[in-house]
Amino acid sequence: MTEMKKTTIVLFSGDYDKAMAAYIIANGAAAYDHEVTIFHTFWGLNALRKDEQIPLKKGFMEKMFGKMMPRGADKMGLSKMNFAGFGPKMIKDIMKKHNAMPLSQLIEMAQEQDVKLVACTMTMDLLGLQQEELLDNIEYAGVAAYLADAEEGNVNLFI
Amino acid sequence: MTEMKKTTIVLFSGDYDKAMAAYIIANGAAAYDHEVTIFHTFWGLNALRKDEQIPLKKGFMEKMFGKMMPRGADKMGLSKMNFAGFGPKMIKDIMKKHNAMPLSQLIEMAQEQDVKLVACTMTMDLLGLQQEELLDNIEYAGVAAYLADAEEGNVNLFI
Amino acid sequence: MTEMKKTTIVLFSGDYDKAMAAYIIANGAAAYDHEVTIFHTFWGLNALRKDEQIPLKKGFMEKMFGKMMPRGADKMGLSKMNFAGFGPKMIKDIMKKHNAMPLSQLIEMAQEQDVKLVACTMTMDLLGLQQEELLDNIEYAGVAAYLADAEEGNVNLFI
Repeated sequence: MTEMKKTTIVLFSGDYDKAMAAYIIANGAAAYDHEVTIFHTFWGLNALRKDEQIPLKKGFMEKMFGKMMPRGADKMGLSKMNFAGFGPKMIKDIMKKHNAMPLSQLIEMAQEQDVKLVACTMTMDLLGLQQEELLDNIEYAGVAAYLADAEEGNVNLFI
Repeated sequence: MTEMKKTTIVLFSGDYDKAMAAYIIANGAAAYDHEVTIFHTFWGLNALRKDEQIPLKKGFMEKMFGKMMPRGADKMGLSKMNFAGFGPKMIKDIMKKHNAMPLSQLIEMAQEQDVKLVACTMTMDLLGLQQEELLDNIEYAGVAAYLADAEEGNVNLFI
Repeated sequence: MTEMKKTTIVLFSGDYDKAMAAYIIANGAAAYDHEVTIFHTFWGLNALRKDEQIPLKKGFMEKMFGKMMPRGADKMGLSKMNFAGFGPKMIKDIMKKHNAMPLSQLIEMAQEQDVKLVACTMTMDLLGLQQEELLDNIEYAGVAAYLADAEEGNVNLFI
């Protein structure tokens, strides 16, 4: 029995287009039988947020971050040509026309393919994000767990 | 006979400076006898556009994207200190003064060194880019081909 | 005796948050006994600048770049939610509250753990940065040295 190839992606970016690229590569690698991990850190955590507001006790700064950061995949902006939020709508219209999956579906597909979705606990703490605010079936870990996966990885990317 | 080392780069970014970094690393690796692939996706495709306008039948959205996105290496902006287009001019002046190669020459050099330049067909489709608009001697492929290269890669980067 | 695992990071970005991510991963990898190299290129060089002004003979363009680019870790902005400089202050306040290390301390920690900090000589030349302006105990090298490290690397990232 040969060992499975491994792909790890650090998703640092909170941009819709970069998160799409991360999830397209992850889903592709999972389809090729790689063990795939996406480690969501800093703004990349926003891709894992539920889109409703969850009432939680938070300090002032954590509340502000919570309000200012996009709640989930559908609220994220583009890294280029965002045009005050018009860009993402254009991209999503075009994607619909071409039957391409929007980010929220790419994330669902990744979960169905057993891509391991990890939320960085250190950044959650800094940004005041709590587990209740994130999607279900997420793992919680720190940089040590990421490195343990990555040092065995065939493809390791930072996005 | 030992196997050749492999380097793969996903060029996602449409920034002049990031594309320069990608091509400098690619040319360096090719000089060290690596097999090198640059997989151009999303805004990174702009580096491969010809600088003239090619008359093609396109839908409204595709036309708009085509107009708004930079046509080729020389039209791209900087990721930092772009200053409404003044930044790239500054950088290019400085590069000239130091006899550093501009991006368009770095791309030519990569082609001469047999760096495999790949355009992501999925993104071309989304952004409405057609083969006639891109440089000659480009390969066309999807994420599966990228992953096949990357899983054998010694150095895999996402830029 | 087993060979040490290797991690290499190209730090291209001049953003405070991205540099933090780079140094957190580097320090984590060093704690796991990896040989770690951070190759600072383009705007990533700013993380290595001393915070005082060093009087040096420079051309006009080099002087302008020197003035416009942030002098050292504490002056860098955020990749997201920078809010004209208010964002970094918010992040630093939150980090203090959570006893997280600011970037300048992460860099010191990396030096104590023998992470190899390299400044890209080609970019220093372009941006007119001189060794006197950078932190002590930095190595100076080009893309060839980076590739020699990276081709042996288990984890290679571009940030």
